[in-house]
Formats: sequence, C-alpha cells, structure tokens
Amino acid sequence: MRDVFQQELSEVQDRLVDIANHVIVSIESAVRAFGDSNVQLAEQVIATDPLIDDKAASLDELAIDIIARQSPVARDLRIVVSALRISASLERMGDLARHIALLARYRFPMQVVPESLQPTFAEMGARDIEIAKMLRDLLETQDLSLADRLETADNHVDQLHRDVFSHVLGTTWEGAAHTTVDATLASRYHERFADHAVGIAKKVKYLATGDWTGDDDARSDMAPEPVRPAGVQD
Amino acid sequence: MRDVFQQELSEVQDRLVDIANHVIVSIESAVRAFGDSNVQLAEQVIATDPLIDDKAASLDELAIDIIARQSPVARDLRIVVSALRISASLERMGDLARHIALLARYRFPMQVVPESLQPTFAEMGARDIEIAKMLRDLLETQDLSLADRLETADNHVDQLHRDVFSHVLGTTWEGAAHTTVDATLASRYHERFADHAVGIAKKVKYLATGDWTGDDDARSDMAPEPVRPAGVQD
Repeated sequence: MRDVFQQELSEVQDRLVDIANHVIVSIESAVRAFGDSNVQLAEQVIATDPLIDDKAASLDELAIDIIARQSPVARDLRIVVSALRISASLERMGDLARHIALLARYRFPMQVVPESLQPTFAEMGARDIEIAKMLRDLLETQDLSLADRLETADNHVDQLHRDVFSHVLGTTWEGAAHTTVDATLASRYHERFADHAVGIAKKVKYLATGDWTGDDDARSDMAPEPVRPAGVQD
Repeated sequence: MRDVFQQELSEVQDRLVDIANHVIVSIESAVRAFGDSNVQLAEQVIATDPLIDDKAASLDELAIDIIARQSPVARDLRIVVSALRISASLERMGDLARHIALLARYRFPMQVVPESLQPTFAEMGARDIEIAKMLRDLLETQDLSLADRLETADNHVDQLHRDVFSHVLGTTWEGAAHTTVDATLASRYHERFADHAVGIAKKVKYLATGDWTGDDDARSDMAPEPVRPAGVQD
C-alpha cells in the first residue's frame, strides 16, 4: 500500500513538472511575442492555454482520488493538498502568460510599450522565464537552494516593476493613455507571474522543512513594502 | 462518526461564513474610503486584513485535520477540498479590498480617480458589496439562485470595468499618467474581487449539483469575451 502511495506521489510530481514545462513554453513565447510583436506566437500561447487548464484540472482529480483511496495523513496528506494548490498557481501562471500574449496580439503590429520601456520589459520577461525554469527544476529535484534563488529573482522583478512605474510617472513620459494602461497591466502580469512562482516555492520549502505555519499564500502579500508609486501595491 | 463529521462540516461552513462577513466589512470600508477619500477607514481595512488571512489559514488547518481524521470520500471529500479553495479565494478578496484601500490612502487627501469616473467606481463598488453579501448568503443558505444572481451582478461589474477603460481611452480623458495608472489598477481590483466571488459561487453550485467537471477556476477565465479595449482582458 505504501509503495503504491509513493508511486502515486511520484505521478503527482511528474505531472506538476509537466505542467511547469508547459508554463515555461507559454511564458517564453509570450515574452517573445510581446517583445517582437509576433502575433503568431501570441496566438499560440492563447490557443494552448486551455491545455494547461485541462492538465491542472486532471491533476486535481488525481490528487482528490489519491486522498480518497489512500487516506494519507500528516506530511503525506499535506503533500497531496499542496499539489492541489501548486496546480492552481501553475494554472494561473499560464493565464498570466496568456494575458501578456493577448496584449501583444491586440496591439499588433505595433509594440505594446514604447521603446523607452522595452529594455525594462525585456529584462522582466527574461527574469520570468528564468523563474519558471527554476520552479520546474525545484519541483523536479526538490533542491531547496532553487527556492532561495527564485525569491532573489522575484525581488529583481519587483524592482523592475517599480522601474516601469517610475518611468510612466516621470516627467519624460509621453505615452498616450492607452499606452499607460497597457504598460500598467503588462507590468502587473509579469510581476504576478513571479509572485505565484514564489508562492509555490514557499510551499515546496515548507513541505521539506516541516514548517507548515508558513504554508499559506497570505503572507507573501503582507510583506512590508518599500515605498512605491501609488497603485503598485499588487 | 458520521455525526461528528457532519458537525465538523458545519463548523467549516460557519467559518467560511465568518470569513465572508469580514470580507463584506472590508469591501464596504474600502469602497467608502475610496469614494470619500477617508483615510481612517482605509487604515482600518489595511490593518484588519491580516485577521482575514489568519482566519483563512486556520480554516485550512481545520480542513486538513478533518481529512486526516475522518478520511472522507466522494462528495464529502470534495466538500472539504472545496472549503480549502473557497478560503483561498475569500482571502484573496480581502487582499483586493486592501489594495483598493491602499490606493485611497496613498492619494489622500485627493481622490484616486477624477470626478468624471467617480459615478462608475461608486457603482462598481456598490456591486462588489452586493456580490460579497450574496456570496455570504450563498455560503450560509446554499440557495443556488444566489449563485445565478451573483453571476449577473458580475456581468454588470465587467461592463463597468469596460466603461472605465472606454472613458480613460476616450478623447475627453485628461488624466495625468498617475491617474491613468490608478484608474487602471483600481478598476482591475474591483473586477477581480467579483471574479473570485463568481469562482466560489461556481464551486458551491457544482458541489450541490454533483457536476464536478465544472469545479475549476480555469473556465471562468476562458470565457469568450466581448471586444474590449486592449489590456482589459483580465
């Protein structure tokens, strides 16, 4: 029975890694679509997002089935419950990649953001891709040093997010209202993508260290924040 | 054993209703703080958000404990797992109320949005409050007609969200970039608040009707959308 359970946990893990791989492809394509104004790539991201949703839903069914059949307790139960939460966050990361792609498609053949902001978004996109890959590796190897590196990369994304707002709210900004709206939302999508990855990394870390008290998303949103321009609280 | 389980389910339900009541207070105060530029109320929302987070975390612990002790299966298990998801969404609704309050505090003593947008935001805020109350009632009474009414109210919020963007992107908009940023984020917070409520309502509905296939968040974000101004996809 125990062996069967371990096999099933391993199946859950494989599926999380598989979903993470799909999220990597989505964010890579979305970032390229956004940066290069590539509408075909954007369409691809939008078209394949339901696949990620289906995979997450199917993993949830498996997790619930495992709980029902195996009645795990203690740490085993927490691992399966965490898988449910991790799949929800991965699914949301896929949605955010899709939102970035939707912006690229909507503005095609124009760029979503003006030239002055493109280096910042390119950097933010590169960090998001890096974070998605670290997350996949963390789910695959449980190497907790990746969780710490991932948090560092997220701090970098937060800084870039603030940079976007400093620029938009600065005296040299000449963007039309629609450009300001797009830059605001695009920056937020990039930042939330990284946030979800950090939330997942924390769950993996807490499962490994046994400190359950940290296993909730709320805290990540409650951290004291540096002073930011208004509206950059999330 | 069965009676104990039913008692525990009833405790879970009571706690969800309790958290929903706190969310109602938060969104009511946040909407008033936002509309009246009331910094004391904004501070209150910001200060009490950790209470909602703690209540959600504590409910999660209870739910996991129930699964471990009672080994529920089939519908019973799905009810407890859904409680985990519902608490996460309620917690997030509290965060969004907090984000609205943060905007109000940041711009105090000024209004966050110009006079031309205030009626739209007042209406959106009123709908969010109404939605939070319907959600609380739904969790308390399981009256599924509330789920349908809630979805109708959410459609109204979506329309108001589009109205905000039509206005911001229209020819008469003279807001500075920071006002455009604030209006964009504020509108999104109001809209996401309602989205989370709809997600919860769907879970309650699916639990009651036994149609598990609909019990995932992904779908709500995949619905075909009316043509919107760019950047209003989420």
